[in-house]
Amino acid sequence: MIRINENFLKLKAGYLFPEIGRRVRAFKQQHPQAKVISMGIGDVTQPLAPAVIEAMHRAVDEMGRQETFRGYDDSGAGYEFLRRAIIDGDFKVRGVDIELDEVFVSDGTKSDTGNMQEIFGIDNVVAVADPVYPVYVDTNVMAGRTGPAGDEGQYAGIVYMPATAENGFVPEPPDKSVDMIYLCFPNNPTGAVATKDALAWWVKYAREHRSVIFFDAAYEAYISDVAIPHSIYEIDGAEEVAIEFRSCSKTAGFTGVRCAYAVVPRQLKAYTKDGRAVEVNPIWKRRHTTKFNGVSYITQQGAAAIHTPQGKRQIQQTIDIYMGNAALIRKRLTKLGYQVYGGINAPYIWVRTPNGVGSWAFFDLLLNKANVVCTPGVGFGPTGEGYVRLTAFGTPDSVKEALDRIAKL
Amino acid sequence: MIRINENFLKLKAGYLFPEIGRRVRAFKQQHPQAKVISMGIGDVTQPLAPAVIEAMHRAVDEMGRQETFRGYDDSGAGYEFLRRAIIDGDFKVRGVDIELDEVFVSDGTKSDTGNMQEIFGIDNVVAVADPVYPVYVDTNVMAGRTGPAGDEGQYAGIVYMPATAENGFVPEPPDKSVDMIYLCFPNNPTGAVATKDALAWWVKYAREHRSVIFFDAAYEAYISDVAIPHSIYEIDGAEEVAIEFRSCSKTAGFTGVRCAYAVVPRQLKAYTKDGRAVEVNPIWKRRHTTKFNGVSYITQQGAAAIHTPQGKRQIQQTIDIYMGNAALIRKRLTKLGYQVYGGINAPYIWVRTPNGVGSWAFFDLLLNKANVVCTPGVGFGPTGEGYVRLTAFGTPDSVKEALDRIAKL
Repeated sequence: MIRINENFLKLKAGYLFPEIGRRVRAFKQQHPQAKVISMGIGDVTQPLAPAVIEAMHRAVDEMGRQETFRGYDDSGAGYEFLRRAIIDGDFKVRGVDIELDEVFVSDGTKSDTGNMQEIFGIDNVVAVADPVYPVYVDTNVMAGRTGPAGDEGQYAGIVYMPATAENGFVPEPPDKSVDMIYLCFPNNPTGAVATKDALAWWVKYAREHRSVIFFDAAYEAYISDVAIPHSIYEIDGAEEVAIEFRSCSKTAGFTGVRCAYAVVPRQLKAYTKDGRAVEVNPIWKRRHTTKFNGVSYITQQGAAAIHTPQGKRQIQQTIDIYMGNAALIRKRLTKLGYQVYGGINAPYIWVRTPNGVGSWAFFDLLLNKANVVCTPGVGFGPTGEGYVRLTAFGTPDSVKEALDRIAKL
Repeated sequence: MIRINENFLKLKAGYLFPEIGRRVRAFKQQHPQAKVISMGIGDVTQPLAPAVIEAMHRAVDEMGRQETFRGYDDSGAGYEFLRRAIIDGDFKVRGVDIELDEVFVSDGTKSDTGNMQEIFGIDNVVAVADPVYPVYVDTNVMAGRTGPAGDEGQYAGIVYMPATAENGFVPEPPDKSVDMIYLCFPNNPTGAVATKDALAWWVKYAREHRSVIFFDAAYEAYISDVAIPHSIYEIDGAEEVAIEFRSCSKTAGFTGVRCAYAVVPRQLKAYTKDGRAVEVNPIWKRRHTTKFNGVSYITQQGAAAIHTPQGKRQIQQTIDIYMGNAALIRKRLTKLGYQVYGGINAPYIWVRTPNGVGSWAFFDLLLNKANVVCTPGVGFGPTGEGYVRLTAFGTPDSVKEALDRIAKL
């Protein structure tokens, strides 16, 4: 008799974004004439860069001619032209040396952060920030690394590290020993960034405890402060304890195109029960090439175009649009008396709700009175209660309109 | 201290295709002037259909304009236009009713068949054919459903069902009870197909034992015999016991574009330890949307174009080219005295090696004497010993050349 994986039954039903969608749909049904503006789900609105469009057209044409047609990406880890562009454009410029076989091109950081845990043992202790991107937690629940969820939606067995205004939304390493540490900087949802010192502290902790850091740098392109590291490998010794995730989704508007990559350094080790050190890189390679068959050639050509001088300039223009939105949101909400975090080195703005109102109550207020959709902070974890997340990914006009409406509240 | 998932250490190092690649590279280094023809790895050679190319160009243009730009595919399971095209084009025409929320578009059948096992319990007993597509086995090894590998590469705990010339390479259901059954028809590697009666027997078995059949129909487009079912859902009651996998890879040359789908019927149930029935469809949906973020909009438009009248005609022309190759391979090898199977309703030809020579010995002979690459049957399992697999995916000229060289052996 076929058994279900009962770990899946532990998952709390109400995933954040479906619940937001439900409430927005209900509101629209009751108010069909209302013009609802979304500052909720973190999807981009600007079109792809012309350099990317051109490269993809060229690649489509290649696929239509026998002489230039491409089948399977034999390496399974991405074409060399893309991996070289990544190594040079994302790492070498910051003084970080990454080898070709340490880069694994994929269809998204959601996939990568969700799948990476699979190559590690089931008994490892997982640590995440609170609030946190739900995928880190849910995929560990599915794998069986947790007990059931408590009343506040937190799972037994996971170490939650509060990210608060007091610690600048950058948690410190815990007192106890944890094995798999998920860090995301620039942070989703708080928009916080980690200084070099803060990351160095984490790397030191991981080296001492032989932990692995899952470093999600999907938003690094939004860093404007020159002192903030873009890669965890800017910290000495990180290559022995950290895996890094990067994405074209927010960097270049690829949410509907799907391209990302993971860096798994050769120096990274994990251990068997009897204490033998095992290289992680070939194990991930085995997993990646057995359960995945590469990214579309067309997509990879589009991603490579981001690294051309022209492509770089064009995606920077788009990022500037979004960061103009972020600056405006910060400025106007601050003027209105809101306490505002993030939005300087990140496309997310983390807003304290006024008068201690709950996240969902403020969500409903914004939706009903201003017809603006935000994301309730408590949806990312109990420490997010009393906050909402706004994203800077709207069009400038819609952002201005939303702020005007909020001003009238 | 971070622990590795030790199940990965059980995997036999020599994955079939890397070993083939190694031997071919070594041969080419020693014989740089030899013109090696590959009839080994199952990759296609014909370009994408003009209808697909057109649709992808249009979609690329849409992504370059703000008004038509697309971000995340909100459903996570594929755009409705594609799922409707699939339901109508692949199922309704064969009298099978599939609902929209039963179709999950993905980046490949390798991913789908590899990931699907994850939502089922770890104690389920897995049954596969021998020979078999290695991904079914390896992903269950990674998940921990097996013991270590034996001398012949078979893993303890898996039920292997010999597919032999005697049973027409279609194994019968086993005497004992198994829970997760992988079936692939038209078959990779043997090229065999299952009749309606054979599939009905399997469905009956699965209903009696409450097993789940993982039905890999990636090669259904190559079926020419009108009596052979294309979908397992052509068998009454299969919707309660079977998941089906389909792919654009071989149907439309998408090996380098990446698009496939899984059908998970609402009626399919799995069970908790205490015997409670659970719907599988919402569990897969939760997995699919948590660990995957959809397929490129451009790719989905390309895939939808396959279902237009023009697209259908064009991909059929390509399939006809490949099946012309298959017919030629069958005819010429039979004439040369080889015992040949498959290649009528499938792009694979399963060839008995002459004089009881081993698979790898014959591989080396073909490579060294004819400069032709095949796939050793034993690489798919011990019952494949004494066979090699040839694919029909070459260009007609290269196939003819390869056959001429084999004739001279």
